[in-house]
Amino acid sequence: MNSVAEAEPRALPVLDGTGRAILFTDARTANSFAPTPVTDAELEGAWELAKWPPTAANVQPLRVLYVRTPGGRERLVRHMNDGNKAKTATAPAVAVLALDSQFHEHIPQVLPFRPELRDVFAADDTMRAETMRFSGALQAGYFLLAVRAQGLAAGPMAGFDRDGLDAEFFPDGRWKSILVVNIGHPGASPWFGRLPRLDHSDVIRWA
Amino acid sequence: MNSVAEAEPRALPVLDGTGRAILFTDARTANSFAPTPVTDAELEGAWELAKWPPTAANVQPLRVLYVRTPGGRERLVRHMNDGNKAKTATAPAVAVLALDSQFHEHIPQVLPFRPELRDVFAADDTMRAETMRFSGALQAGYFLLAVRAQGLAAGPMAGFDRDGLDAEFFPDGRWKSILVVNIGHPGASPWFGRLPRLDHSDVIRWA
Repeated sequence: MNSVAEAEPRALPVLDGTGRAILFTDARTANSFAPTPVTDAELEGAWELAKWPPTAANVQPLRVLYVRTPGGRERLVRHMNDGNKAKTATAPAVAVLALDSQFHEHIPQVLPFRPELRDVFAADDTMRAETMRFSGALQAGYFLLAVRAQGLAAGPMAGFDRDGLDAEFFPDGRWKSILVVNIGHPGASPWFGRLPRLDHSDVIRWA
Repeated sequence: MNSVAEAEPRALPVLDGTGRAILFTDARTANSFAPTPVTDAELEGAWELAKWPPTAANVQPLRVLYVRTPGGRERLVRHMNDGNKAKTATAPAVAVLALDSQFHEHIPQVLPFRPELRDVFAADDTMRAETMRFSGALQAGYFLLAVRAQGLAAGPMAGFDRDGLDAEFFPDGRWKSILVVNIGHPGASPWFGRLPRLDHSDVIRWA
């Protein structure tokens, strides 16, 4: 595969068992972390992967605040629900995933053959909000798997005070937090027992 | 890594370059498909991967209708926007991703230590809808990468008549379509030129 256009069809490779284990079948949401540091380069590397998979009209509305200084973590933990404070306080790094409510300002850059879509989004609050939420959540899914690709465990949490966190870190109101993700190497007894997944017969239909 | 609890921390493996290329860095949204068939086993295998990454309270609201018979495809193509009809007509398989509006009925099964959450969701339409949309879109992201892990190209499209498609395939009103994904091996000239991604400086902040 090349990242440029190519003329002839060719078979794509299949992900091997180790890759499947890292991203899907063996990966788990960590609930404790080892003191092993996570470097800024590892965190940048996660985004360097997560940025590639598709979004609607290439809008890419997801944003990331990486918190890893003691001062930053203290400001963050304050806004986590009580049950999440200890985990977030001990994770070597934490990502606050947010949506850029003005994502459409970037459209002339990210969709150069259709720059006028910026104004279409600007004029339609409902479409703008729905596109932002859907593509942003798609990207959050990509991000969690990209963190795993870096050999790091991710612990996503929705239990925090969004208004409080946004006022703390995004006071201009442009970014809106959607998920907080603890990131690090798993610590002692990091996993709960795995919860059941729905049967294929509850999920899949055929036509 | 085991899928059961383990007592001691250990380093997690990092995804290798081939795996990164398959899922993130070289993978592309295909716009044409080779006639090579896609088997039902490959499609089941994509879900077998996509089902594992996390959702809020393990709710797993995403559902999949796989369309691969001529009759099924004909019913589907009717509801695609004109610009998407030809692609969907020639893809060896197509996944309609949908949300189960009654996903909370499964909570006693998927969250056995907190079955009462079913009734909490049943009583709060706003929370139920937001959780469904967010976790369903996360799962759509996992699904697209799981299709790629199977050595298949995925072509997600939002351009279709949702009400028409839902009336056609989900007449009882429980499943609501969110995305149609063409699936297959890439055909001739399958890729457009790659669209720009935002700079890290537009996406990432540090604290």
